Amino acid sequence: AFKGRDGDDDVERTVGKSIYMVSDGTGWTVEHSVTAALGQFTHCLVDRVCPVNTHLFSGIDDVERLREIVKQAAKEGAMLVYTLADPFMAESAKQACKLWGIQSNDILGPLTEVVASHLGVSPSGLPRGAFGNNIALTDEYFRRIEAIEFTIKQDDGALPQNLNKADIVLAGVSRTGKTPLSIYLAQKGYKVANVPIVMGINLPKNLFKADPEKVFGLTINPIVLQTIRRARAKSLGFSDEMRSTYSEMDFVREELDFAGKIFAQNPTWAVIEVTGKAIEETAAVILRLYHDRKHKCSMPRISKRY
Amino acid sequence: AFKGRDGDDDVERTVGKSIYMVSDGTGWTVEHSVTAALGQFTHCLVDRVCPVNTHLFSGIDDVERLREIVKQAAKEGAMLVYTLADPFMAESAKQACKLWGIQSNDILGPLTEVVASHLGVSPSGLPRGAFGNNIALTDEYFRRIEAIEFTIKQDDGALPQNLNKADIVLAGVSRTGKTPLSIYLAQKGYKVANVPIVMGINLPKNLFKADPEKVFGLTINPIVLQTIRRARAKSLGFSDEMRSTYSEMDFVREELDFAGKIFAQNPTWAVIEVTGKAIEETAAVILRLYHDRKHKCSMPRISKRY
Ligand SMILES: Nc1ncnc2c1ncn2[C@@H]1O[C@H](COP(=O)(O)O)[C@@H](O)[C@H]1O
Ligand SMILES: Nc1ncnc2c1ncn2[C@@H]1O[C@H](COP(=O)(O)O)[C@@H](O)[C@H]1O
Ligand SMILES: [Mg+2]
Ligand SMILES: [Mg+2]
Repeated sequence: AFKGRDGDDDVERTVGKSIYMVSDGTGWTVEHSVTAALGQFTHCLVDRVCPVNTHLFSGIDDVERLREIVKQAAKEGAMLVYTLADPFMAESAKQACKLWGIQSNDILGPLTEVVASHLGVSPSGLPRGAFGNNIALTDEYFRRIEAIEFTIKQDDGALPQNLNKADIVLAGVSRTGKTPLSIYLAQKGYKVANVPIVMGINLPKNLFKADPEKVFGLTINPIVLQTIRRARAKSLGFSDEMRSTYSEMDFVREELDFAGKIFAQNPTWAVIEVTGKAIEETAAVILRLYHDRKHKCSMPRISKRY
Repeated sequence: AFKGRDGDDDVERTVGKSIYMVSDGTGWTVEHSVTAALGQFTHCLVDRVCPVNTHLFSGIDDVERLREIVKQAAKEGAMLVYTLADPFMAESAKQACKLWGIQSNDILGPLTEVVASHLGVSPSGLPRGAFGNNIALTDEYFRRIEAIEFTIKQDDGALPQNLNKADIVLAGVSRTGKTPLSIYLAQKGYKVANVPIVMGINLPKNLFKADPEKVFGLTINPIVLQTIRRARAKSLGFSDEMRSTYSEMDFVREELDFAGKIFAQNPTWAVIEVTGKAIEETAAVILRLYHDRKHKCSMPRISKRY
């Protein structure tokens, strides 16, 4: 029921409940957590039956601004969710909310405490971006950027000669979400190539030379695909004729069959159903499989070192 | 101190402390929170002085697998962080951790409780992707995909005739992070165009015709830029000659001066310092300014409707 990043154009601040989010950093952690929690209320958010407005305040590193925000939250009848690394700031947020009688939740504090006790090390209390806390130009930094640049260049079947350099190869008919999925995975540091499957057109030979364990075929329900293609044809301003071949049901089914046959001929490729899944859900399924195939752990997991 | 997405290739499970992360969904929320919390221990993580390994288990929706994971965590001396929408699952995680004597933290439960009380509505208890919980093909869904596709096509100064259609335009010399930054913003639903500034080359006329409030110039410390360019020149296999012009200090300074003059001639453009900032930090700064310029709120914020 999310009505868009620019929703504030028409937010009437008096309509609906508000959630204030405060971070001394980017605010992406608190935003991510609140979005997940709001997933528990979709039954009520749908069609804005009970509308919710979120307001993100990032880079809040002094207590005066923090208190101003809490005061404003109280005026609007909002609640407050925060991530504040400095224990004094976190405590101030808690106290100010108490004072103004508004509900609040600390995302970072309780977790940091448990981690500190697990590691046997005290937390620094320094926010992201604080002096001396700047990111270093690590191998990881360069690798992530390289993954993004590789993935962009490889989009939509470009440069098939590089397919063997990809960590992950996605294959599927138009509008199965290959591009946004590739980009999502690239952000996580994987080099992704995507190859469109088009009815009657031969796939690049290199696709069959690539390690089949890293190839993922995307499949989708034909009715859902038709809906997506119609929206696409409209937004691209296709002519009526192009529109019908592209999104006509018979053609959609035939093209999915064509893709299905290719997948059947390459039984090592994993086939992933994308119907009804958000990009990040499909990405989670792919990465789970990718790591599982690579490491053949008894319990599939994605591991990292810090 | 993150050693890469494929860190598990060489994780010796006995070296370092482990954090197990469990979700009934994608696991991205718990991973995001744990990464933020680990930011509080960089003083100890650096050079793997006290190494930490994280293990993500996503899509865990039955209690048997959950208990297996907790048991394994106990064996490895790990702690557990989880997001489990079903209260029975969350309670089981807590109890199992108690039973095995391992520390644990619930990311979703406490926040969901406070939101429920704020909204006066009970949470569904249904995990993401549960039956009936599938994503709908909303305007927002299409808009985000359109933003990603727009941004890819526009990369590196391509299609300057479309600059006026972008929400955000980034301008900067090579290796100021325009591409990864554009992609990061696109994922958040913004159409981004980036325009490279190259010494002695005229910028596209359309850049000066675009709304100057949406143009962001990127600037960086010359020494840091030189380091990044050297790494780049090496990875692209530049010849010694190209390498030196591209990353030689005199040239780097001159090119940054050239960019600085263009910024000075366009005083409405915001100039953003990227030195030492992670992509998501620069993105946060840009979006804060973007929304502030658009809405001229007394308290800069990013608002959304759900
Ligand atoms: N690398 C880091 N170093 C120190 N603190 C961090 C780091 N990353 C995130 N944090 C903290 O974690 C919380 C969430 O960060 P953010 O997602 O940027 O809002 C904030 O309180 C940040 O200060
Ligand atoms: N749209 C949604 N509907 C219901 N639950 C959600 C939604 N998005 C996230 N969640 C829940 O929030 C937690 C974090 O999600 P994830 O980031 O996918 O691991 C999990 O317990 C999910 O089940
Ligand atoms: Mg595509
Ligand atoms: Mg670029």
